[in-house]
Amino acid sequence: MSAAPEQLLRVQNFMLSTDGFGTGEGQSLERPFGHADPARLSAWAAATASWPNRADAGGTRGLDDYFTRDFSHHIGAEIMGRGKFGPQKGPWTDLEWEGWWGDEPPFHTPVFVLTHHVRPALTLSDTTFHFIDADPHEALRQAKAAANGKDVRLGGGVSTLRAFLEADLVDTMHVAVAPMEIERGGRLWDSPDELLDRFHLERVPSPSGVEHLLFWRR
Amino acid sequence: MSAAPEQLLRVQNFMLSTDGFGTGEGQSLERPFGHADPARLSAWAAATASWPNRADAGGTRGLDDYFTRDFSHHIGAEIMGRGKFGPQKGPWTDLEWEGWWGDEPPFHTPVFVLTHHVRPALTLSDTTFHFIDADPHEALRQAKAAANGKDVRLGGGVSTLRAFLEADLVDTMHVAVAPMEIERGGRLWDSPDELLDRFHLERVPSPSGVEHLLFWRR
Repeated sequence: MSAAPEQLLRVQNFMLSTDGFGTGEGQSLERPFGHADPARLSAWAAATASWPNRADAGGTRGLDDYFTRDFSHHIGAEIMGRGKFGPQKGPWTDLEWEGWWGDEPPFHTPVFVLTHHVRPALTLSDTTFHFIDADPHEALRQAKAAANGKDVRLGGGVSTLRAFLEADLVDTMHVAVAPMEIERGGRLWDSPDELLDRFHLERVPSPSGVEHLLFWRR
Repeated sequence: MSAAPEQLLRVQNFMLSTDGFGTGEGQSLERPFGHADPARLSAWAAATASWPNRADAGGTRGLDDYFTRDFSHHIGAEIMGRGKFGPQKGPWTDLEWEGWWGDEPPFHTPVFVLTHHVRPALTLSDTTFHFIDADPHEALRQAKAAANGKDVRLGGGVSTLRAFLEADLVDTMHVAVAPMEIERGGRLWDSPDELLDRFHLERVPSPSGVEHLLFWRR
């Protein structure tokens, strides 16, 4: 009676500005989002009880909390672009760099980092980063094989999302649009309406001021 | 860094009419919701991809699906009133009656059924029903002990919800208000505003026409 055990490719909690940018200009070790302020992009999530980085036991348990607690639900692997892992370009010159997240990355699954410059796999706590030089189809094949029957999260950034959307591999996508403009940097779209030929779209305003955009295949 | 491993008591996907009723009048084996039509109360959930009873692999993956897929998320036990288990009153005269749900109940955890007429525990697939004669505090103590560190779902019906709200034991509550009136039967409230002294409330209209009410403790 239950649905077929299809493995989906899901974008979860991707944070965007009202003008369609996911990052600003000038990404660096000190400024992972370039000139944009990540605290403003993520404020809606940081206020919730299920936000993994919170230092106290408080937090809201309203609509936004459903999104933060769904982040890992039924997810068995993640795919991310190299720019989400770190700001370096070209051959790796510092293998000591182990990502932005410290000793306890928030993924808790295999993570496939897309790069033309492969390097040995890196395990931090229960997250293992695999660095692969693969097109979207091949990356998704590897991630599904590693996901133990569960779904695969597509983590971003915007150029990675665009590549997988272009290849028509994305099944569901949740984008949280924060009330701010970034103006230049990494842009996902001019308008979410660009995707309406292939996706259903629900726009859900949250009391926090963010707008949740929920896409799923037609 | 993560929140304390507190065990919550959560009401999940409780279905209500706009005039505050969860069931109609005249509950029977043939009509679990009495004169009210359960298909109208649950239409929003039945349309989603994660609805456990769906016969096909389709279904929506918008806002309402977040609620259906969260139903079992981090839940380790359920507490329900006897009226949710079955329509009988008084001493059990037919122990062959094993609930509304057939051989595969949708709970997949221990379930504590509150009744003044205890009977032996009943296991159907991965759900075990325990019939206990206990007040809300004692029932919650037993359910938390059985939940393996996870949260406890309070399943209903309305008199059970009212008893646990009266005892101030509910931590979060999601009520889905369907656009219909029931007029008589089991009523939860005159208005959700009755709870505002103790709870935050977010009202989230869904594109499906249902309104999700999200309560959490102040």
